[in-house]
Amino acid sequence: MRFFSDNAAPAHPKVIEAILASNRLDTAYDGDEWSRRLDGAFSQLFGREVRALWVSTGTAANCLALAALCPPHGAILCHKDAHIEVDEAGAPAFFTGGAKLVLLEGSGAKVTVDTVAAACDRIRPDVHQVQPAAISITNATEYGLVYRAEEVAALGALAKRRGLGFHMDGARFANALAATGDTPADASWRAGVDALSFGFVKNGGLNAECLILFRTELADEIAVRRKRAGHLLSKGRMMAAQILAMLEDDLWLENARAANAAAKALAKAAGPRLVYPVEANEVFLRVSAEEGARLRALGFDFYDWSPGEIRLVTSWDQPGEPLDRLAAAIAAL
Amino acid sequence: MRFFSDNAAPAHPKVIEAILASNRLDTAYDGDEWSRRLDGAFSQLFGREVRALWVSTGTAANCLALAALCPPHGAILCHKDAHIEVDEAGAPAFFTGGAKLVLLEGSGAKVTVDTVAAACDRIRPDVHQVQPAAISITNATEYGLVYRAEEVAALGALAKRRGLGFHMDGARFANALAATGDTPADASWRAGVDALSFGFVKNGGLNAECLILFRTELADEIAVRRKRAGHLLSKGRMMAAQILAMLEDDLWLENARAANAAAKALAKAAGPRLVYPVEANEVFLRVSAEEGARLRALGFDFYDWSPGEIRLVTSWDQPGEPLDRLAAAIAAL
Amino acid sequence: MRFFSDNAAPAHPKVIEAILASNRLDTAYDGDEWSRRLDGAFSQLFGREVRALWVSTGTAANCLALAALCPPHGAILCHKDAHIEVDEAGAPAFFTGGAKLVLLEGSGAKVTVDTVAAACDRIRPDVHQVQPAAISITNATEYGLVYRAEEVAALGALAKRRGLGFHMDGARFANALAATGDTPADASWRAGVDALSFGFVKNGGLNAECLILFRTELADEIAVRRKRAGHLLSKGRMMAAQILAMLEDDLWLENARAANAAAKALAKAAGPRLVYPVEANEVFLRVSAEEGARLRALGFDFYDWSPGEIRLVTSWDQPGEPLDRLAAAIAAL
Amino acid sequence: MRFFSDNAAPAHPKVIEAILASNRLDTAYDGDEWSRRLDGAFSQLFGREVRALWVSTGTAANCLALAALCPPHGAILCHKDAHIEVDEAGAPAFFTGGAKLVLLEGSGAKVTVDTVAAACDRIRPDVHQVQPAAISITNATEYGLVYRAEEVAALGALAKRRGLGFHMDGARFANALAATGDTPADASWRAGVDALSFGFVKNGGLNAECLILFRTELADEIAVRRKRAGHLLSKGRMMAAQILAMLEDDLWLENARAANAAAKALAKAAGPRLVYPVEANEVFLRVSAEEGARLRALGFDFYDWSPGEIRLVTSWDQPGEPLDRLAAAIAAL
Repeated sequence: MRFFSDNAAPAHPKVIEAILASNRLDTAYDGDEWSRRLDGAFSQLFGREVRALWVSTGTAANCLALAALCPPHGAILCHKDAHIEVDEAGAPAFFTGGAKLVLLEGSGAKVTVDTVAAACDRIRPDVHQVQPAAISITNATEYGLVYRAEEVAALGALAKRRGLGFHMDGARFANALAATGDTPADASWRAGVDALSFGFVKNGGLNAECLILFRTELADEIAVRRKRAGHLLSKGRMMAAQILAMLEDDLWLENARAANAAAKALAKAAGPRLVYPVEANEVFLRVSAEEGARLRALGFDFYDWSPGEIRLVTSWDQPGEPLDRLAAAIAAL
Repeated sequence: MRFFSDNAAPAHPKVIEAILASNRLDTAYDGDEWSRRLDGAFSQLFGREVRALWVSTGTAANCLALAALCPPHGAILCHKDAHIEVDEAGAPAFFTGGAKLVLLEGSGAKVTVDTVAAACDRIRPDVHQVQPAAISITNATEYGLVYRAEEVAALGALAKRRGLGFHMDGARFANALAATGDTPADASWRAGVDALSFGFVKNGGLNAECLILFRTELADEIAVRRKRAGHLLSKGRMMAAQILAMLEDDLWLENARAANAAAKALAKAAGPRLVYPVEANEVFLRVSAEEGARLRALGFDFYDWSPGEIRLVTSWDQPGEPLDRLAAAIAAL
Repeated sequence: MRFFSDNAAPAHPKVIEAILASNRLDTAYDGDEWSRRLDGAFSQLFGREVRALWVSTGTAANCLALAALCPPHGAILCHKDAHIEVDEAGAPAFFTGGAKLVLLEGSGAKVTVDTVAAACDRIRPDVHQVQPAAISITNATEYGLVYRAEEVAALGALAKRRGLGFHMDGARFANALAATGDTPADASWRAGVDALSFGFVKNGGLNAECLILFRTELADEIAVRRKRAGHLLSKGRMMAAQILAMLEDDLWLENARAANAAAKALAKAAGPRLVYPVEANEVFLRVSAEEGARLRALGFDFYDWSPGEIRLVTSWDQPGEPLDRLAAAIAAL
Repeated sequence: MRFFSDNAAPAHPKVIEAILASNRLDTAYDGDEWSRRLDGAFSQLFGREVRALWVSTGTAANCLALAALCPPHGAILCHKDAHIEVDEAGAPAFFTGGAKLVLLEGSGAKVTVDTVAAACDRIRPDVHQVQPAAISITNATEYGLVYRAEEVAALGALAKRRGLGFHMDGARFANALAATGDTPADASWRAGVDALSFGFVKNGGLNAECLILFRTELADEIAVRRKRAGHLLSKGRMMAAQILAMLEDDLWLENARAANAAAKALAKAAGPRLVYPVEANEVFLRVSAEEGARLRALGFDFYDWSPGEIRLVTSWDQPGEPLDRLAAAIAAL
């Protein structure tokens, strides 16, 4: 059983159904009836007017947002372990036309007001140094920690004071909200977020993520950039349909809760082996090479994060028997 | 009934089946069992070793190829009505880092050895002018004409003599082959093509195109560029699975033949109204505004190409009753 | 004697003097006393507040301006023979991050309200096509014609109506004003120009051009882009000093008048051989290969523009004996 | 007296003379007689065939070289305090089309084989992470330390083993050689350097730096990129002439020795206040705010590097009386 990454899990049956239901002739690109419902559906979810654009990957969502928030000659402040820095092949530089990532320290890949402010202060305000233009945080973080609404709001206030754009990589936004109980609104625009990459693929979607713009005036430019980046699919209806299916009856939240619960079960079994508190659906464990091999021999697969440390990620479909066996195996190490 | 564009048609049932069959846990990105079969499947189809990478759009396929064939400071020669020039929002410049499209004249959006050679000769070989690096042609063209294998080969020989890369936008490659009867090999690498955007979305696919590299040494760089452009989907298996389904029992060719046959039926009805000979699945008609309105009143939709001219595009699923009615309506104008 | 191009002429003695006078320790980059006087000097010349930035080449001046006026996904409308299109190695695409040049026809490389409006109207206002963002004209044009203030103003009004930025490549702005008698203000900002590349190198300067911004709010961004493009020289004082010397006692105008007068003398000798009316300092002549050879045998050098056509360019220092001999030689052909 | 930066010093009289001597009509751009002598002059200096291109700034020299050595999707390894990282406004990303700088630690801004190798080893060799393509070091470093030829050679050997390009920012290459006594050849191509930014502006030049290519096959591409970046001056003869003047009778080395000697004199006076050993022409001192103010009150100007630390840079023309006074003032603090 694979606990390698939630991004490899199957799509949820309701997502599949929605795709099938949309498989008929309609207008191409995003002129179809499903795509035209997206803005409204997310405006309802967030309790205010938003613009919502589907894209195929989190990388595309993140980098289209960053390109609108940061000029080619600007800097984006992010954690040194942020996905945009370590796992997107330099996509932020590609989409922005060469913007710079200024890397911040911080436990569990979390960024704080202090680290952001200090990084800004180290930059001389002249033409020789790249000036800060935006902050990007990941929620839940790459280590499975979450920002509570008030933490986001503190960063949002800082961004506002400094004149910086504020982007949230929400590849696991659902898991974060499932953990904190915050509302979508409180964890995003009310906290000053300008653009949110709302992830669905790791949470039961097939291939559709959604970029949510609270600064709605950015949407038209981003729509052009999406096309220019080859991300305007001709059968966009199947993208919108699966996202709408995820929103229906809060399937996104239900799935995230299931994944988080699975992680909690593993965390309970792991006890003092935990590297970070388990808040969302990622579990980092201190496990020797020999112990890791034992788990693998039992049929479990996972990511060797660093020597002596493994990463387990749970998915929306992973409660059940294999999980129990894994928990037992971890407890028995 | 819409004859607006083949890119809005439904996906073929076998494609849907393949996606459903791939909807289970596997390795993410392109490490899954389906993706790993692509190189082999296309190598068999083309009768030589190729590399094959799935992407979500024709724009991505075209521009990833062009970025590998043309440096930022080079020029790509293409027809002035080529899709990469008029309908990709400047994506070639984005992906290449600023390469220039040098535009060629030619009836029916076809490029000839003479127009390419003349365009090259007009460029002074110095650092002040952008030097040619690649040719890109579309087969079938934006006006539904096809290049026979020998026409492609003449351009391929020119490309070789001039040291230019050679790209084919094959969004309707299937329709072209269905029209000419040429083999995939004869119409591509044997004719000197370096990279082919092999289209499936207009021909029964859902959202997967395939970039075929005959210069296989380009594949690794393009794989990096694909990730960097946000085009490496995490559930790539659903991309590969649908392409493999299209290849099985030559479904791609069967679908293209059906679409072409539908276009022929319309062409027969249209007679002297035809702007171009109908070779693939596009039909351009001289139709007055009043006549166009009459067709629309009968429930048919299409693209007003220019004053007095409409475009009808047929799809793999469009033989049958509505087509007969449309043909009759055109004949009755 | 070379009549190849004004950009190869010597620098004027007063320019040299100014450089020597600035050759002492001062603040680096553009913090020195000369650079700090530029804004004021040009504000006086243009009769309103402007920002003025020195750069080393016309290409840099043009493309820095265009990068501020046009986003990476926008289009710049210019004549098909404009310097930015044919002689800058694709620099506009490099500086803007991939903007597109939309090419216009027009006799003598002149752009008119009609050609610009028609080009805009041909672009569908959707995300698939690159939308117009700016107009760029060259004054005097690449064929030595000039725009009168009212012609510029008509284009400026169009730019305003369409929401387009308006750039003027004034590599030979001095020659244009010397020809028309228009004031700098009337030929630029009063006519709607947003940014002007004010050329000095072809007119007695050594290596300093000046980018004049009438939309002063663009200056700070352009200053950053200038540094980022490697165009912020550390001894900027020698750049500013030579420009200030050119402004003193209207040396720029005096030099341009001399060059224009030289061209007029050649034009008079050439009579019906003239391809275009001679308005500034360029003379295009119909001359057979054999006649051209005869002129070269007499020691004159020039550019073979196209078969049967040569280009002669006169410089600030070219009145005098060799010019008289050349005029006589042309008359005697 | 300013000890702020060597880049603000006057040009040497022989440089001025050479510029004046070149101020006559010749071919534009780099076709003139001076520019055509550059390759030969540097080939002689380096004892092998090289290509040499003048540019106006060190930033341009550095980034043109990096653009040829690193693809848009590659990484350049450099010290975290390297000029290309902290003082070029993101120019490396602009010129390369978005390459990433991977930052290394190291005392005195020096890079070692171990830090480079470790940084490479931390990068997973997959498409998700940006792969290393080049190393860039600065000699003398931003803190005035020098690499001896054998240190460069160790890095060069590593670059070769790892398949990385190797660039040297030699804004103060002359000062480095004056310090080590190494030959130009030993400190560059014999040690594996592919491209060297050979600085002259900080060492008596006016506005010309020279990019030296030991991998001569890169020169033609870089010549195109130079034009495309607006760095091909029309009166290039004045660029080449001043560089040739610097080479004549080893003026470059004589000037660097004078600057280094001035720094040594200050170092001697400073004693235990030195932050780094003084090897070239930069002196970093521990000086309190009050002490700094005292020096300024005596008429000396310098850079406040960080709280409690100042930077003094000496120039080719700074031996003599003011230097002695400064040395005495430092000793008296």
